[in-house]
Amino acid sequence: MRPVAVVGIGKTPFGVFADRDLRSLAVEASHKCLKNGNIEPSRVEAFYLGNFAGPSFVGQSHLAPFVAGAAGITGAPATRVEAACASSGSAFFHGWSAVAAGIYDLVLVTGVEKMTSQETPRVAEILAMAGDCGGEVRSGATFPALFAMIANRHMHQYGTKREHLAAVAVKNHANGAKNPDAHMRKVITMEQALAAKPIAEPLTLYDCSLVSDGAAAVLLAPLERAGEFTNKPVRVLGVAQTSDFVALEQKEDITTFRAVRAAAGKAYGMAGLGPQDIQFAEVHDCFTIAEIVAIEDLGFADKGQGGFYTAEGRTCPSGELPVNTSGGLKSKGHPVGATGVAQICDVVLQIRGEAGERQVKRREIGLAENLGGSGASAVVTILGAA
Amino acid sequence: MRPVAVVGIGKTPFGVFADRDLRSLAVEASHKCLKNGNIEPSRVEAFYLGNFAGPSFVGQSHLAPFVAGAAGITGAPATRVEAACASSGSAFFHGWSAVAAGIYDLVLVTGVEKMTSQETPRVAEILAMAGDCGGEVRSGATFPALFAMIANRHMHQYGTKREHLAAVAVKNHANGAKNPDAHMRKVITMEQALAAKPIAEPLTLYDCSLVSDGAAAVLLAPLERAGEFTNKPVRVLGVAQTSDFVALEQKEDITTFRAVRAAAGKAYGMAGLGPQDIQFAEVHDCFTIAEIVAIEDLGFADKGQGGFYTAEGRTCPSGELPVNTSGGLKSKGHPVGATGVAQICDVVLQIRGEAGERQVKRREIGLAENLGGSGASAVVTILGAA
Repeated sequence: MRPVAVVGIGKTPFGVFADRDLRSLAVEASHKCLKNGNIEPSRVEAFYLGNFAGPSFVGQSHLAPFVAGAAGITGAPATRVEAACASSGSAFFHGWSAVAAGIYDLVLVTGVEKMTSQETPRVAEILAMAGDCGGEVRSGATFPALFAMIANRHMHQYGTKREHLAAVAVKNHANGAKNPDAHMRKVITMEQALAAKPIAEPLTLYDCSLVSDGAAAVLLAPLERAGEFTNKPVRVLGVAQTSDFVALEQKEDITTFRAVRAAAGKAYGMAGLGPQDIQFAEVHDCFTIAEIVAIEDLGFADKGQGGFYTAEGRTCPSGELPVNTSGGLKSKGHPVGATGVAQICDVVLQIRGEAGERQVKRREIGLAENLGGSGASAVVTILGAA
Repeated sequence: MRPVAVVGIGKTPFGVFADRDLRSLAVEASHKCLKNGNIEPSRVEAFYLGNFAGPSFVGQSHLAPFVAGAAGITGAPATRVEAACASSGSAFFHGWSAVAAGIYDLVLVTGVEKMTSQETPRVAEILAMAGDCGGEVRSGATFPALFAMIANRHMHQYGTKREHLAAVAVKNHANGAKNPDAHMRKVITMEQALAAKPIAEPLTLYDCSLVSDGAAAVLLAPLERAGEFTNKPVRVLGVAQTSDFVALEQKEDITTFRAVRAAAGKAYGMAGLGPQDIQFAEVHDCFTIAEIVAIEDLGFADKGQGGFYTAEGRTCPSGELPVNTSGGLKSKGHPVGATGVAQICDVVLQIRGEAGERQVKRREIGLAENLGGSGASAVVTILGAA
C-alpha cells in the first residue's frame, strides 16, 4: 500500500437550509474541494458518496451518479456507501483503500445529508432505522433512548456524573461558537446545560446533537503526487473500518464500543503511533456520552474516566488533548452522511493551520472517529502533516 | 493488480416469501456461499452488501453490519453499497478491487432485496426513487414508463418490432422454466406475450421483470490461493463500473446506455477480449427492451439490430450467443439488490458445468451486465474458467 494524502477539502456550512436541496449541497462541497485541490471535475477517477438516508429524507436513491453528474463527474465509478452515521467515514475508508492500493490516483469522497425537510418525529423514525428495527426499535427505542441507556450504565459502572455530560456540551458549544460553518454558534453555561429539558433520562436537550443539512468533501491522491495539487498536503497515517452487532442487547458491555477499539487499534498500528501521540481529535459526539466513551475507547482516558477527564478541562482547546474544536456534532451540527468527511476536513484544517480562532497549537497529528448507529460501524482515521 | 477468482457461490431461490425477512435471505445466501467455498464466516476479511432499498422496503438501514453480525462475521469492515438495480454489481466491483489490489484475501459479496412486503403501487414508488425524482419522476414517470420511451424510440429509430420484445420474453421464460431457483417457471407463447395486458405502451406485462425476494453471494480470493477453497475456481477476467446522468432527458441518445458501452470497453480491455470471444451472457433485462439494448451496447449485435438478432434465435440456448439462460430478471426474478451478484453466480454455474438443464455447451467465457436505473450505473464482468 502506498502513502495517500488529502490534497483538497470543501464544506458547506451546516444548518437548516430550507431553500437548498441535497444535490446542491453535495455539489457545492465537491466543487469547493476540487477547487481547493486545483483540479477540474473531469479529472476525478472515482467518486464515493457517503449518505445515510437520502431516499427516506428527500425521496431520492441512486445518489452517487445523481450528484456526480451534476458536479461534472461522468463516466467514473460513482458509488454510494451507507453505514448509518458512519456513512462518509466508510466512504473515505474505501476511497483511501483504492488510492493506497494503486487502483486510482484522484478520488473524490463526498458526504451529504439533507434532514430538515422532514418534521422531527419523522427524523427520529428515519434515524432509528440504523438500530435493530425488529428488536430494540420495535420496542420503542430511539437513538436518544439507546444512548441514554449507555449513559445510565456508564454512570452506574464508573460514577460518571450528569455534570460530566454537561461539561462535554459546554465545551463543544464554546468551540462551535468560533466556527463560522457551525449550525449552532451559541455558548451555553453549565447551568443551562443542566437545566435543559429532558429528552431521554439522563440526556437533556444539550446532550443531543443537531438535526442539520450539510455536505463535506475531500480529495485524495498518492502522497508522491500531492505537490501537483496543494502546497499543504496532509497524510493519511492510519485508517480502519470495523463492524459489530447492530442491536445494543447483543453487546457484552454497552459502556464501550468494541468496533471503535478495534478500528483505533488497527489505525494506530498502521500509523505506528499510540494514543499518546495524538495531539487533537474530532470524535463522534452524537450524544455527550458518546464523546466520553470515545475518548476512553481511543485510549486518551482510562476506561470509566472519560467524564472526569472532560470535567478537568483536559479536552478543552487549552487542554492536553483538544477534542472537537470544530464544535462537534453537538454544536457544528450532524448532517448524518456528511459527518465523517466533515470531521476529516476539520482535522485537515487544524494540521494546515487554517482553523482560525479554533486553531490548536500542537497541530501535527490529529484523529477523527466516526461512529455508525450504537457502535455497529466505526471508522478511525489518523492524519498528519506531510 | 493480481488475478482474482470466484471460489464460492450461494443463492436463495427467488420468489415471494411471505415468511422470510431480508436478513434471513441474506444470511442464507451468505452461508451457502461460504460453505461452497469451504470457509467459516470468521475468516471473511471484508463484507460488501449490495442492497437498493432495504430502508424503504423493510424499514431497516445500516444493513451491512446487520447482516454480517447475523452471519457470524463481526469485526470486519461491513459496507452497504447502493447503486439502484446495480447495487450488488457495484458491491462485487468494489470487493474485486480490494482483492485485486491486495488489501484482503477473502471477501464476501452478498446482494439482497426483500420487496414483496410492500404493495405494488408502493414498490413502483420505491423503484422510481432510482430515477430523477425532481424531474422525470415528478412528472409521473415510473420505470416501466421510462423504458417504454426507450422502446418507442428504438422502434422509431431502428424498426424494432413489438414481436422482437416478445421474443425476449418468450426465450427468457423458456429458460427460467428450467431454473429451479427461478421466480416464475412458466413457459409462455409468442401469442400470450403479444396479447398480455398493457403496462406502458408498447410494454406489456410480459415485457416487465418481476418483483421478487431473494439473495445471492460470491466469495472472492486471489487466484493463486483459489485451490484452498474450491476445485472449480472461476477467474474474473475483466470488470468495470461506470456512471452516467440519472435523468433520461440528459442523455444524448436514449436507445443506448453510454455507461454500459464504457464499462464493456474497460472490461474487454482488462480481459484482452472482445465481444466475439464471449460465449454466453447474463444481461440486465429489467424490461425486454433492456436486453435488446444490452446486446447492442455489449457489441454482440450491431446498433439497432438487437431485436432482429433476438428474433432470429441467436440468443437462444442453442444459438451462437445464449443470453439469460437463467431466465433473466424476466423469469428468474429481480430482487433488485441481489441481481448483480445473482447474475455472476449464474455465469459461474455455467462455467463450472453445474447449470443442469440450462447448461450451455461453450462454457469457458461468460459475461454479466448489471444496470442501475435507466443507465446511470453499469457494471460489466467477464468471467472465465481458471
